[in-house]
Amino acid sequence: MTGPTAQQTPETAPAAPPISFARGAPSTDIVDVEGLKEAAVAAFDTDPAGMTGYGTAVGYVPLRRWIAEKHGVPEDHVLVTNGSMQADAFLFDELATPGAAVVTERPTYDRTLLGLKQRGADLHLVTLQEDGIDLDEVEALLRSGVRPALAHVIPNFQNPAGYTLSLEKRHQLLELAREHGFVVFEDDPYVDVRFSGEPLPRLLELDGGAASTSVVYASSFSKTVCPGIRVGYLVGPPALVERIRVRATNTYIAPNMVAQGTVNQYVRGTRFPAALERVRSALAERVGLLDVALREHLPQASFRRPDGGYFLWVELPAGEGHDVRRIAQEATRRGVAIVPGTDFLLDGGENAFRLAFSGVQAADIEEGVRRLAAAVAAAQG
Amino acid sequence: MTGPTAQQTPETAPAAPPISFARGAPSTDIVDVEGLKEAAVAAFDTDPAGMTGYGTAVGYVPLRRWIAEKHGVPEDHVLVTNGSMQADAFLFDELATPGAAVVTERPTYDRTLLGLKQRGADLHLVTLQEDGIDLDEVEALLRSGVRPALAHVIPNFQNPAGYTLSLEKRHQLLELAREHGFVVFEDDPYVDVRFSGEPLPRLLELDGGAASTSVVYASSFSKTVCPGIRVGYLVGPPALVERIRVRATNTYIAPNMVAQGTVNQYVRGTRFPAALERVRSALAERVGLLDVALREHLPQASFRRPDGGYFLWVELPAGEGHDVRRIAQEATRRGVAIVPGTDFLLDGGENAFRLAFSGVQAADIEEGVRRLAAAVAAAQG
Repeated sequence: MTGPTAQQTPETAPAAPPISFARGAPSTDIVDVEGLKEAAVAAFDTDPAGMTGYGTAVGYVPLRRWIAEKHGVPEDHVLVTNGSMQADAFLFDELATPGAAVVTERPTYDRTLLGLKQRGADLHLVTLQEDGIDLDEVEALLRSGVRPALAHVIPNFQNPAGYTLSLEKRHQLLELAREHGFVVFEDDPYVDVRFSGEPLPRLLELDGGAASTSVVYASSFSKTVCPGIRVGYLVGPPALVERIRVRATNTYIAPNMVAQGTVNQYVRGTRFPAALERVRSALAERVGLLDVALREHLPQASFRRPDGGYFLWVELPAGEGHDVRRIAQEATRRGVAIVPGTDFLLDGGENAFRLAFSGVQAADIEEGVRRLAAAVAAAQG
Repeated sequence: MTGPTAQQTPETAPAAPPISFARGAPSTDIVDVEGLKEAAVAAFDTDPAGMTGYGTAVGYVPLRRWIAEKHGVPEDHVLVTNGSMQADAFLFDELATPGAAVVTERPTYDRTLLGLKQRGADLHLVTLQEDGIDLDEVEALLRSGVRPALAHVIPNFQNPAGYTLSLEKRHQLLELAREHGFVVFEDDPYVDVRFSGEPLPRLLELDGGAASTSVVYASSFSKTVCPGIRVGYLVGPPALVERIRVRATNTYIAPNMVAQGTVNQYVRGTRFPAALERVRSALAERVGLLDVALREHLPQASFRRPDGGYFLWVELPAGEGHDVRRIAQEATRRGVAIVPGTDFLLDGGENAFRLAFSGVQAADIEEGVRRLAAAVAAAQG
């Protein structure tokens, strides 16, 4: 989400328009604006009272039903929210109370870390490997006496790393959760923008779906419909969903009915599958070009090409004294934006950065990486 | 917002459909659904990137500008939120901290009381008179050493009472706020649905508008556009707005852009003035019929006919042992819903209830009051 902030002076501003690998958002050309417009009209025509009335904090009933069917759970397991970050906030208010031990991946989404820190949770960041969170490290934590209330994972195409939690580790994490009585928060906004490889079962499913007691699942329509629609949701045990419903009612009465009604029409409509396919193929093309360009222009960098999502995590060789803040500044001067690795960690990350390929047109990717390589070189000089 | 909850048994259920004086929401017939649909289409056509992208927590920029112009303040005084209750929640998080003294009207909106209680604020409820909050009582509080951080007032067509704060008292309240260093929270969702009498200047204006340091103003498009659109806003000193912007960013990134873009097109469009006039005249008709019906069927009740808004506060003679919970139950049995006065107070209110006329069609009002009068009689028997 972070955009470039430094102001360019006339002397240093490049002639070419800036290229942003910083924003975890789709470029407008891969959003089906016509389809959304049609969906909004259909929603007002079909259910004027539901679109314009308050509704309740559980969300727009037909969309809630669609989500429940998608995940094979009864409707009372589902709560729709104004974007999934609002869902995170409600869940953290319930479970990440002051002093509560919470496990997250290292690195992880900067806003997740911030939300947990602000609530005074006792944070334990566990190394993220290419196949997901390091479970030996989690076990060592548990052996040391830490009793987590919550373990937050982004299982598919993780933000910022792009890594995916393996099936074996999914099973193992659930075993640990059941044995030690913590909740796994499966934060899964990118799952439906997989462009290669085989989909893996959700932790929620592996834990029994409707019978699950160890998983709270969150996802969003930001990546499949568009971010401005701000519709996300939680799936979890009904008693917890009911507590969050009360909290949501007292915060904003109900989430946005116009937006949810539009999403409901859109995802049930005929244009959605093709639009989603267009998003996936655009992301696949972009990551392919980024892969090639990084190998050519920044051969010293290591990274893993993801099978979906928006992000790729780049590490420069350790021990060479890289300072990613300086690299980011040099990049800004050259008209390219990145997010420093340090933003996704409590400490470290000076030799790493996140590249978001979701918002960069294919034609701009190589030029962006050229500028970035020049910035890396300049920052070392 | 509260709807009827008690389940009717087949034996006692009336043949006629239920009539709800409980919900503070407009009936769908006074919502301009066609106009909203056109506005949504225009918004997608005019600004596809702005509608579908994340945006930022200050809100959709063209709507924020419209609000700033409406109130004669620079844009950095304005923050748009997912409904004005979310704006209240953010402001309370900033100012109604645990132990902070907060003044409210007595009675006042039940969700306001709940939000303040949940945050651990030190609540001081001050009698609401027909011309607004009792300032002698406020002065006595201040003399007794109470140092409020915040005084919450609903100056126009108060919820639940329907009363309006007089011009003289507006000036006096601001004087007290400046002298004693507290913030007046001007919670004003009903101002634009005035159907009789002359509009009064806002406290925000009387405090200097852009130069105001003692007032935070909140309003909403729920009453002028529709509730399901969930768009509200705050106007206040830029430093406070900036703190709330950070809080909003960390909660949900940005409020709903699709909804805000639709509101922006709608309020700038040609249909809005006529639609608003239709809302006002429908509300005027409903309150007129309610006035007549109450005088005829419930002559022992006292109430003040409001000049706008959604609500009317009914008091039955004190000392007659009225029990409004029993009245509400008897009413439900007879197919009419009300909200007990006790919901709007920390104590008392057993002989009072709120009638919302916003959601009841003109043709149903007399029948609703007949049922209510029967319920009052039955509850005393």
